[in-house]
Amino acid sequence: MTDSKPPSCSPPPELLDALSSARKPLLIAHISPDGDAIGSLTAMGYLLYRMGKDPILACQDKAPAVFNFLPFYERIVQSVDERPDLVISLDSSDPTRMGSIYEETRFGDLPLIVIDHHVTNVYFGDINWVAPDCCATDQMIYYLTKALNEPLDETLATALLTGIVTDTRGFRTYNVTPAVMHVTGELIDAGAPLAMITERTLDTRSLALLTLWGRALDTATLEDSVISAINTLTMRQDLGGIIRAEGLVSFILSAQEAKIAAVFTEMPDGKVECSFRARRGYDVSQIALQLGGGGHPPAAGCTVEGAIHAVRREIVAMLKEEVQRKR
Amino acid sequence: MTDSKPPSCSPPPELLDALSSARKPLLIAHISPDGDAIGSLTAMGYLLYRMGKDPILACQDKAPAVFNFLPFYERIVQSVDERPDLVISLDSSDPTRMGSIYEETRFGDLPLIVIDHHVTNVYFGDINWVAPDCCATDQMIYYLTKALNEPLDETLATALLTGIVTDTRGFRTYNVTPAVMHVTGELIDAGAPLAMITERTLDTRSLALLTLWGRALDTATLEDSVISAINTLTMRQDLGGIIRAEGLVSFILSAQEAKIAAVFTEMPDGKVECSFRARRGYDVSQIALQLGGGGHPPAAGCTVEGAIHAVRREIVAMLKEEVQRKR
Repeated sequence: MTDSKPPSCSPPPELLDALSSARKPLLIAHISPDGDAIGSLTAMGYLLYRMGKDPILACQDKAPAVFNFLPFYERIVQSVDERPDLVISLDSSDPTRMGSIYEETRFGDLPLIVIDHHVTNVYFGDINWVAPDCCATDQMIYYLTKALNEPLDETLATALLTGIVTDTRGFRTYNVTPAVMHVTGELIDAGAPLAMITERTLDTRSLALLTLWGRALDTATLEDSVISAINTLTMRQDLGGIIRAEGLVSFILSAQEAKIAAVFTEMPDGKVECSFRARRGYDVSQIALQLGGGGHPPAAGCTVEGAIHAVRREIVAMLKEEVQRKR
Repeated sequence: MTDSKPPSCSPPPELLDALSSARKPLLIAHISPDGDAIGSLTAMGYLLYRMGKDPILACQDKAPAVFNFLPFYERIVQSVDERPDLVISLDSSDPTRMGSIYEETRFGDLPLIVIDHHVTNVYFGDINWVAPDCCATDQMIYYLTKALNEPLDETLATALLTGIVTDTRGFRTYNVTPAVMHVTGELIDAGAPLAMITERTLDTRSLALLTLWGRALDTATLEDSVISAINTLTMRQDLGGIIRAEGLVSFILSAQEAKIAAVFTEMPDGKVECSFRARRGYDVSQIALQLGGGGHPPAAGCTVEGAIHAVRREIVAMLKEEVQRKR
C-alpha cells in the first residue's frame, strides 16, 4: 500500500500554531449537514476538548438524529452566545455554507480557518487548508490528529470514520484511494465500528420512506436509457409529512439499462422538484442549470413550475437528448 | 494499522508444495456461484496460468454475466473432459457444494486441496486450508499470492477485490477487519477498480427487478418489528421470467422499525419460497430449520406448501414470537 501522503494532506504549520494558541474555538459545520459535516464537527470538537480547549460546536440546522451516536452530538448549538477567539469552518466550500452561524459583525475580527476537501472551495479564510484529494473533511482531520501527535481513540475514530463512510457512500465513489483504505484500517483498529456506522448512516430508512419508494418505483419508466419516476402528493397522502423519496434517484440509476435517472416530486405549492443522476460520461448539471438549478455533472437538480406529468415529459425529452449527444 | 496476519492467513507449506508440482490443476467453484466463488476461481486460475500451469476452471452452474469482466471468465467450463493432476476446491464448505463437477470415480484418486473461509467447513480435502477469519476466499488467495512471492497486477487484483467486495456487501459485514482494509488498499494500488467492481456487482439491477421491487414494496407491512412483503405470480406476469425479488429482503430490513424481515414468493408449482433476514441478536435460522429449510442466524430460508397469504400470516406470527423472545 502507498503510505506516502499527497502534500495537501499535511495541515499548514500556521494552522497548527493557530490551534495551539486558541482557547475557545468556534467550529462551524455547513447548513443541511451531512455525515461529513457532523463527523468533522464532532471529531474536531472532541479532539480540541481532549487537548484542553473549550470548543463551541455550531451548525445552523439541527444535525439529523441518525448521527446521535457521535461524541458531543448533543452539544451542537444552532446559535452562538459566547465570544470565541478563533473560527474554524469545516466542510464548507464558500462562506454562505456557514449559514446564520457566521455573523460578520460579531466574528469578522477573529482569524478564520477553512478546512475543506471540496474542489470548488473559494479559499475564504485567513488560513485555508483545502485538500481535494481527500474523500472527506474527516480524512483531513485524521491527518491533523497525526500532525498534532494526538492519539486516536474509539470515540475520535468513530467520528472520523462516519464522514469517510457517508461521503464515499460506503466506499463507492471514484476517489477511494489506497490512502483512504489505510486510514480506514487504522480507524477500525482504534475501535471505530464500521458495520454499525454503515448500517446507521446508509442502510437505515423509515418505513414511510420505504413505502414511498415502493409507490414511486411503480411509476419507473425507461425511455432511451433515461429512467424516471414520479412522487406525487397522492402517493404521500398518508405518510406523515414525508416529501422527498430520498435515495430513490440513485437507486433507479442502478437499472443496468439506464444512463441517466430522474425523480420528479410534486410539491404542495404546485411546483415540481427535479432530481437528476448520471453515470460517468454523462452530464446532468447543464440541464439543471438551464432550468434554474445547479449541481455537478453526475448529480444535479432544479425546481420548476408546472403540472408533474407535463414537467416529466418535457424534461425527460431533454435528458434523452443528453444521452443522444454523448453517443 | 495492524499488519500482522492471523496464523490461518498463511497457507500450509504442503499446499505450496502441491501447487508447485502440479501441471494441470482442476479448480472447482461452488454451485450457484457468487462473486467470491467466481472471483477466487478466476484469480486462482489466472495466478496458476501466470506461473506456467495449465489450469482447468470449472463450475457446475454458469457464472452470472455480471462477472464477465473477470479474467478467464469465458474459460470457465460446466463439465471437465481432460485429466487433471490435482483438484482444488474453492469457497466450498462441503463436497456437495462442488456439484456435478467433482466425480469421485474420475478424480477420487487425485489429491484434493480445500481452500475456504467458511466457519462451517467440514475439512473434506487431503490438504485443508480453512481461514474463517478471512472475509472472503479471495482474501486467502491474496495471502497465497504473497506466500508464493508472485506479484499482483491489475488483472489479478481485480479478481481478488471482486470476492472481497461481494462477500462483504461493500464492506458492510461485521468481519471487515483492518487486515481487509490493508489488502483492499494494496489491490486498489495494483489497479483494481473498486468503484467499477462495486457498481457492477452490487449496484446494477435489471429494470424488471426494479419494477418487481416496486410492486413487492407496495405490500410491505410492519407488525411488531417484523417487516414482510410478498411477491406474487400476478406481480411477475409481464416481467420476462423473473422470479426472485433479489435483495429485497435485505433492503426492507433497512426499515429502522424492523428487527426481522421476510419476503414470500409465490411459485408456479403452488409452493411458497420464504426468505428471512434478522438484525444482530435475532435468529431466523431456527424457524427456517423448523420449516424444513436452513441458513444462518442473520439469513435463512425455506420452501413451504400453502396459499401465499396464509403462509405469510402463519410465518410472520412465528417471527413475531422470535422478536418477543429476545426482548
